[in-house]
Amino acid sequence: MPEAEQAQQPIKLLRTSESESLQKIRHTASHIMAMAVQKLFPKAQVTIGPWTETGFYYDFDSPDPFTEKDLKQIRKEMIKIINRQLPVIREEVSREEARKRIEAQNEPYKLEILDSIQEPITIYHLGEQWWDLCAGPHLENTAEIDPKAIALESVAGAYWRGDETKAQLQRIYGTAWETPEQLAEYHRRKEEALKRDHRKLGKELGLFIFADAVGSGLPLWTPKGTILRSQLEDYLKQEQIKRGYSPVVTPHLGKVDLFKISGHWQNYKEDMFPMMAENEAAAAAEQGFVLKPMNCPFHIQIYQSELRSYRELPIRYAEFGTVYRYEQSGELGGLTRVRGFTVDDSHLFVTPQQLDDEFLNVVDLILTVVKSLQLTNFKARLSFRDPSSDKYLGSDEAWDKAQNAIRRAVEKMDMNHFEGIGEAAFYGPKLDFIFEDALGREWQLGTVQVDYILPERFGLEYVAEDGSRQRPIMIHRAPFGSLERLIGILIEEYAGDFPLWLAPVQVRLLPVRPDHYEYVKEVAAKMRAAGIRAEADTNGDRLGKMVRNAEKQKIPVMSVVGDQEVADNTLSIRTRASGELGAIAIEEVINKLATAIAEHSNF
Amino acid sequence: MPEAEQAQQPIKLLRTSESESLQKIRHTASHIMAMAVQKLFPKAQVTIGPWTETGFYYDFDSPDPFTEKDLKQIRKEMIKIINRQLPVIREEVSREEARKRIEAQNEPYKLEILDSIQEPITIYHLGEQWWDLCAGPHLENTAEIDPKAIALESVAGAYWRGDETKAQLQRIYGTAWETPEQLAEYHRRKEEALKRDHRKLGKELGLFIFADAVGSGLPLWTPKGTILRSQLEDYLKQEQIKRGYSPVVTPHLGKVDLFKISGHWQNYKEDMFPMMAENEAAAAAEQGFVLKPMNCPFHIQIYQSELRSYRELPIRYAEFGTVYRYEQSGELGGLTRVRGFTVDDSHLFVTPQQLDDEFLNVVDLILTVVKSLQLTNFKARLSFRDPSSDKYLGSDEAWDKAQNAIRRAVEKMDMNHFEGIGEAAFYGPKLDFIFEDALGREWQLGTVQVDYILPERFGLEYVAEDGSRQRPIMIHRAPFGSLERLIGILIEEYAGDFPLWLAPVQVRLLPVRPDHYEYVKEVAAKMRAAGIRAEADTNGDRLGKMVRNAEKQKIPVMSVVGDQEVADNTLSIRTRASGELGAIAIEEVINKLATAIAEHSNF
Repeated sequence: MPEAEQAQQPIKLLRTSESESLQKIRHTASHIMAMAVQKLFPKAQVTIGPWTETGFYYDFDSPDPFTEKDLKQIRKEMIKIINRQLPVIREEVSREEARKRIEAQNEPYKLEILDSIQEPITIYHLGEQWWDLCAGPHLENTAEIDPKAIALESVAGAYWRGDETKAQLQRIYGTAWETPEQLAEYHRRKEEALKRDHRKLGKELGLFIFADAVGSGLPLWTPKGTILRSQLEDYLKQEQIKRGYSPVVTPHLGKVDLFKISGHWQNYKEDMFPMMAENEAAAAAEQGFVLKPMNCPFHIQIYQSELRSYRELPIRYAEFGTVYRYEQSGELGGLTRVRGFTVDDSHLFVTPQQLDDEFLNVVDLILTVVKSLQLTNFKARLSFRDPSSDKYLGSDEAWDKAQNAIRRAVEKMDMNHFEGIGEAAFYGPKLDFIFEDALGREWQLGTVQVDYILPERFGLEYVAEDGSRQRPIMIHRAPFGSLERLIGILIEEYAGDFPLWLAPVQVRLLPVRPDHYEYVKEVAAKMRAAGIRAEADTNGDRLGKMVRNAEKQKIPVMSVVGDQEVADNTLSIRTRASGELGAIAIEEVINKLATAIAEHSNF
Repeated sequence: MPEAEQAQQPIKLLRTSESESLQKIRHTASHIMAMAVQKLFPKAQVTIGPWTETGFYYDFDSPDPFTEKDLKQIRKEMIKIINRQLPVIREEVSREEARKRIEAQNEPYKLEILDSIQEPITIYHLGEQWWDLCAGPHLENTAEIDPKAIALESVAGAYWRGDETKAQLQRIYGTAWETPEQLAEYHRRKEEALKRDHRKLGKELGLFIFADAVGSGLPLWTPKGTILRSQLEDYLKQEQIKRGYSPVVTPHLGKVDLFKISGHWQNYKEDMFPMMAENEAAAAAEQGFVLKPMNCPFHIQIYQSELRSYRELPIRYAEFGTVYRYEQSGELGGLTRVRGFTVDDSHLFVTPQQLDDEFLNVVDLILTVVKSLQLTNFKARLSFRDPSSDKYLGSDEAWDKAQNAIRRAVEKMDMNHFEGIGEAAFYGPKLDFIFEDALGREWQLGTVQVDYILPERFGLEYVAEDGSRQRPIMIHRAPFGSLERLIGILIEEYAGDFPLWLAPVQVRLLPVRPDHYEYVKEVAAKMRAAGIRAEADTNGDRLGKMVRNAEKQKIPVMSVVGDQEVADNTLSIRTRASGELGAIAIEEVINKLATAIAEHSNF
């Protein structure tokens, strides 16, 4: 990541929800845009125009499709409105008065909006010529917006009320900032994000594919991508074995009955793939199989296959369990939103006395993993239930106990954290690790959950020291979260420049002439025997092309091999992390590489 | 396996199909049994009574359920018939004559059989009192059967014509041999097989479970069983990496469309799990997903994701790919017949010039693997298509080419082999490795297939040296076949006594008194740090019980630790392979164990 680090500016870009100033700027900018559109396109009808986390949009019903050229015109018109220094005036009106004014304008969408909003009805005026229903807040004058800090970004289709059966609208996306520097930084990050897009890099680096005949959201991992997966899996497996986890393997499907006991069928069905039933009668009776959306019910079956003693607890079953969720195809995107993904899942069965320690051990493991992946910029979200919702299983008492356990852990670890009400799983609260990447984007990574509900539903037990039957508590946890999602994030965070230990190809040897082919093949074989993923480029390309290919593939270490190197038994090493290192004896290169790989450091 | 090897007798037990003598003995014995049954139970009606590979059975329609006591009576009556030295006489009769005689007996099942058989109609008489429709062959006299070489084994329910909607019959199983010694050996092996039954041992050793709520045929692997799996996987992965295989990972399901291209949908649908479709309309249009019964179409997608050059070939994609097949629930049994299993699958994409060498390389890998697992007693089956059947895809020419490639390899390797007509996969012929276990039972293990058909159906290509587009040939191969099936076979072959490198727990340390607990825990931790799966038994049991537990769990190495061992820093070692080894210094034990594990040898 050296390039990214150098390029990173001290300019901080806040999300809209973090800044009241940005809320006002973007809200007002969206009104200015709507006013500009209606000035230029008098037939355009306005609908809604909220801020987003990085800008704003407005949906229009307009007979003419907006073009790139139109966007430029609209922006010019917006600047005129800003320069006119129009006051932004809030007016509270009665519903009748609002209706009268809207009807005078002949704006049917606004009328629908009026019917759906609560009193007090407020109107915001831009000067005397334009107004819209709006709850605010806004700036006091259009002149408070810096014309050099706004940009219009794109046009997309949208449906009125997000409903495919309703009118199709045109949505114009824009952004607005406090200063031109912020806008420039935002554009730089957007461009950088495009370059780092894991879908683009995944293709260029040959890591994974999607295939129409297989289905969207179902990635197929090529040899190079599979190396990434197995390096991550092997690393975590080792960490888990050290900590007393026991790997298990379970099927990818189970009877509907299983998910009725767990509650998934009742609470999670729309996220699951359709049932597999032999025939219509079996389907009607819900006698069929479903792909697992989570691994928990399966690990519970293993726990339940024997009567457990307190002496066996804590039991920590771990599985890189591939689960399938029926995301809507419109929501699928690269590796970060897929229909099949592998959870680095584990379920701990613990006594009440063990709960706090085991929870802290899990948090410690997650922090170790996250650090080892160089994902240091994160905070913890206490994902609690929304007490006003009925989508959660279990008693208030169980929820309080579980949420309190999470609070205790977070306080003990003194972690940067915040509460997310309504973000819990249906069977228990979670502690989620939210990672902020080099471009200021947030990603959810690992998670830990405390669960009193599933042990209850499955009737789990253990024999306590006094001979009585007691109920264990479950901890669900996944430091990576999803392997697919993690790899997507890592590709973007590293911009494809994987650390040495993860890189699919670690070393590429480039022979100056064909008569060096045999030598580089030998050296590559020697490296491979030492556990280094090395390859010799003997495809017959000219040296310049070989170098460009190795750079394009972002191979951490490359070495051009000519007469001198063959004569001296050396390699001229150039690494992405440290640049030219000059000629080094082969044995030394191999030793240093092997050490760097084992230590997860660079070379 | 020392016990099993010592106990093994030189007596060879042939399958019925291998011995005309046994065919006659068993065929005649089944008639004698039927005659005996009708003597003792005059209301019993006879249906069919064929030989099986290890004996014979006869299905009866009888109002009284046969008991164990009845079997003894029937056997006594059989011996009487044998001792009467009845001649077995073949008579050829017209269909009308046969009908007349059957109607006189009032045997409706026989009448149905008569209607279904071809001329010539033959009848076999046992003396003058009993006869049955039969094609033979038979002995010439009942006295040729040694009464001490027959046994009746069990009674089970069966349906007439195997059809659940028809009459329920009672099936009596028996066996018959040339000599009493063969019968005794057969009984010994049966008993041994029961002891080695992997379902029984799997439970006792805690290797895997089945759960009603998950579904039959879907094993869940406990921590111990998962160690077996991962040891086998890791071993083969290493062997494959050495040989230039590239691991890939693919989803467990794909669109129906994918399997239409591959031909699975048309040719293999009844073996697949039901389709997952969003609704009835989608189901009717076959717009849905299915679980993969094989991995090939997925690896083909990866091949097809780029234009391949001859320089890239051979490409060898490898995946421990879990596949799902909808076996009828009645056919499921333990690990050897399951609905979900992991194939150690690989697909090689090769040029015609590479075919023979690559095929031989695969056979070499399979022989290496099989030898490493001590499964030495096997033969190769050339599983070819049945040219009279229409269930195979592709042209005669493609089949001939593929079958010839397999023949060439087998001849070159000079392997013990036989042809199995009609045993091919629908898309190509196979070379199957059939293993005969310590009890003379046959199991199918690894397989290699040559395939010209799928490359054609998917339109696979590579750019040849001259720039033209050529079609690669595919080799499908799996040395283990199915990991589940292999483990089932290994459990039985080893009788649960796994070789050291595979054993889930390799060492158990047994402290004489609680004040030795800390010491054994330390030693166990030291061993684990050296990569040895060691555990300390600190559950508080008395020593005798600890020893019995370790024996019952068939742990390869156990060590009782008392004052002397603590004082001397030694371990008193007792291994299942070599017995008592006396006191050995701890460091030496660890070194020797680590070496034996790495070398797959015993200690």
